Amino acid sequence: MDIISRFSEKIDAVNSAIDKFLRIREPKRLYSATRHLPLAGGKRLRPILAMLSTEAVGEDWKKTIPFAVSLELLHNFTLVHDDIMDRSDLRRGIETVHVKFGEPTAILAGDILFAKSFEVLYELDIDDAIFKTVNRLLIDCIEEICDGQQIDMEFESRKYVSEEEYLEMIEKKTSALFSCATTGGAIIGDGNNREVDSLSLYGRFFGLAFQIWDDYLDIAGEEGEFGKKIGNDIRCGKKTLMIVHATKNADGREKETIFSILGKKDATDEEINEVMEILTKSGSIDYAKKKALHFAEKAKEQLRVLPDSRAKRDLIELVDFAISRER
Amino acid sequence: MDIISRFSEKIDAVNSAIDKFLRIREPKRLYSATRHLPLAGGKRLRPILAMLSTEAVGEDWKKTIPFAVSLELLHNFTLVHDDIMDRSDLRRGIETVHVKFGEPTAILAGDILFAKSFEVLYELDIDDAIFKTVNRLLIDCIEEICDGQQIDMEFESRKYVSEEEYLEMIEKKTSALFSCATTGGAIIGDGNNREVDSLSLYGRFFGLAFQIWDDYLDIAGEEGEFGKKIGNDIRCGKKTLMIVHATKNADGREKETIFSILGKKDATDEEINEVMEILTKSGSIDYAKKKALHFAEKAKEQLRVLPDSRAKRDLIELVDFAISRER
Repeated sequence: MDIISRFSEKIDAVNSAIDKFLRIREPKRLYSATRHLPLAGGKRLRPILAMLSTEAVGEDWKKTIPFAVSLELLHNFTLVHDDIMDRSDLRRGIETVHVKFGEPTAILAGDILFAKSFEVLYELDIDDAIFKTVNRLLIDCIEEICDGQQIDMEFESRKYVSEEEYLEMIEKKTSALFSCATTGGAIIGDGNNREVDSLSLYGRFFGLAFQIWDDYLDIAGEEGEFGKKIGNDIRCGKKTLMIVHATKNADGREKETIFSILGKKDATDEEINEVMEILTKSGSIDYAKKKALHFAEKAKEQLRVLPDSRAKRDLIELVDFAISRER
Repeated sequence: MDIISRFSEKIDAVNSAIDKFLRIREPKRLYSATRHLPLAGGKRLRPILAMLSTEAVGEDWKKTIPFAVSLELLHNFTLVHDDIMDRSDLRRGIETVHVKFGEPTAILAGDILFAKSFEVLYELDIDDAIFKTVNRLLIDCIEEICDGQQIDMEFESRKYVSEEEYLEMIEKKTSALFSCATTGGAIIGDGNNREVDSLSLYGRFFGLAFQIWDDYLDIAGEEGEFGKKIGNDIRCGKKTLMIVHATKNADGREKETIFSILGKKDATDEEINEVMEILTKSGSIDYAKKKALHFAEKAKEQLRVLPDSRAKRDLIELVDFAISRER
């Protein structure tokens, strides 16, 4: 059984809470646009991590549902705005919000999702002081994500990016939200400081492993079902870890080939293949997989301080899932 | 003396807090974009209203500075995103953020201002329970503003809009934030329920009067200094109260003239003049001025429950300023 489907009770609870929370009201077009992406599915990985973190520190995961919803709305807000910035047409196999509803309404729908991610925190049954802490986690997380997205865009116009710079970027763009999920889940579950810190770091490393694997899937993943085309990152000129590695380690002619194809919106499948062959030959793909594995191990290590539980074992398995999934 | 310059101590305090709060950090381009509009001036009307409301219920206005900053950041966030949606090139006499920094960075700068407007609330010296109340005011306000912007955009593609619909739109798009300012200021100042409710309503009516006068200025205001061109609303196809009134009351031929020019991006000054003459002849300009005056009186009436104070007198004078200013 797919590990994700094991969490169907949690996922159903979150999906139904999202559906209820994002009810359509006037102006209808705006609220249809707001629902478009969050209701189109997705793995709900961040909500699952939050709820498991609450469980792992000994509290009922149901207490965390509003926070789990908040994370998913926040995630979707960033996706809606990112898709405008990146001019992406497809997401989760359907039209992106700005393609379906036009850019002005998509900008507003993102803003509404942003606001709603804060609003839903009011449904948490927690002390006012804890509320302030959790609310602040979200704020800091959003700022990190925006910083990461800006850095990612700036990388596109640079020839070389170092591994250190790449890691800093994905830590902001991707890890911050995973870490927010596990930290918040642990805080809502009233975990002690050691538990909260461990789960916070777990989320950071989880995010790094997840994102590097995501980059890898762009080259080796399954095509089609989710509307993602292989080689998309190359056509967009994204500085993935593999590109970072190859532009440092490949030979001069290979580098020139990469530079001539990277960022070429209309690159042919043959050209994408050419880049992929160089990435393979220069060991860049293996290097990225090894790095993902490394961060996955670091993530698991953090969990040592937690007492054994089903939730803890699930968190460990989720790490393995993050670096073995095929889409 | 201009009434606004009477508040120079308050304005300086807010400006310096904004400058400090929006310090430039990495990625520099994003934070330069974030500072671009908030540091370019503006009347700081919302911060002033918040600080005066705090004073009017008997508390030191300095306590409200972080909230005043929050309101201004929130206001600027909506302007940055609105300018993208409306394709505006100029604001406060300078290039808009998306023209200077590109659209992707402008979207992110708006998002950062949004997040920062929540972050700065953590500098308020208030109880956690009050914090939750004030934080919630902001959330609800943002959602109202987004709803209002969506409705405003939808009006552009409609031929007729009723006065009731128009008023509902500006209540969301403009009044919500003025009311948030006065309500929050009163709450932070520990005003009693009656005071808070009165100042809340004062803000609502103030906003209606302010926006109708703003519409009027588009036709009769001073040109140039602030980069605003007379007739801009007409070229953008905005349904102002004057247009709403004229498309109901002018004769058939005049209506056709309005419809043929409204929303014409490259309308000549002669065409704008033609519309203005119809608006004058049909009494639409006088009607709008009368309405602005009406809401201004309603705003002042709300203040009756407050004890006499300098701050109360300032709030009354600000209403008169809102419907007499020339830009």
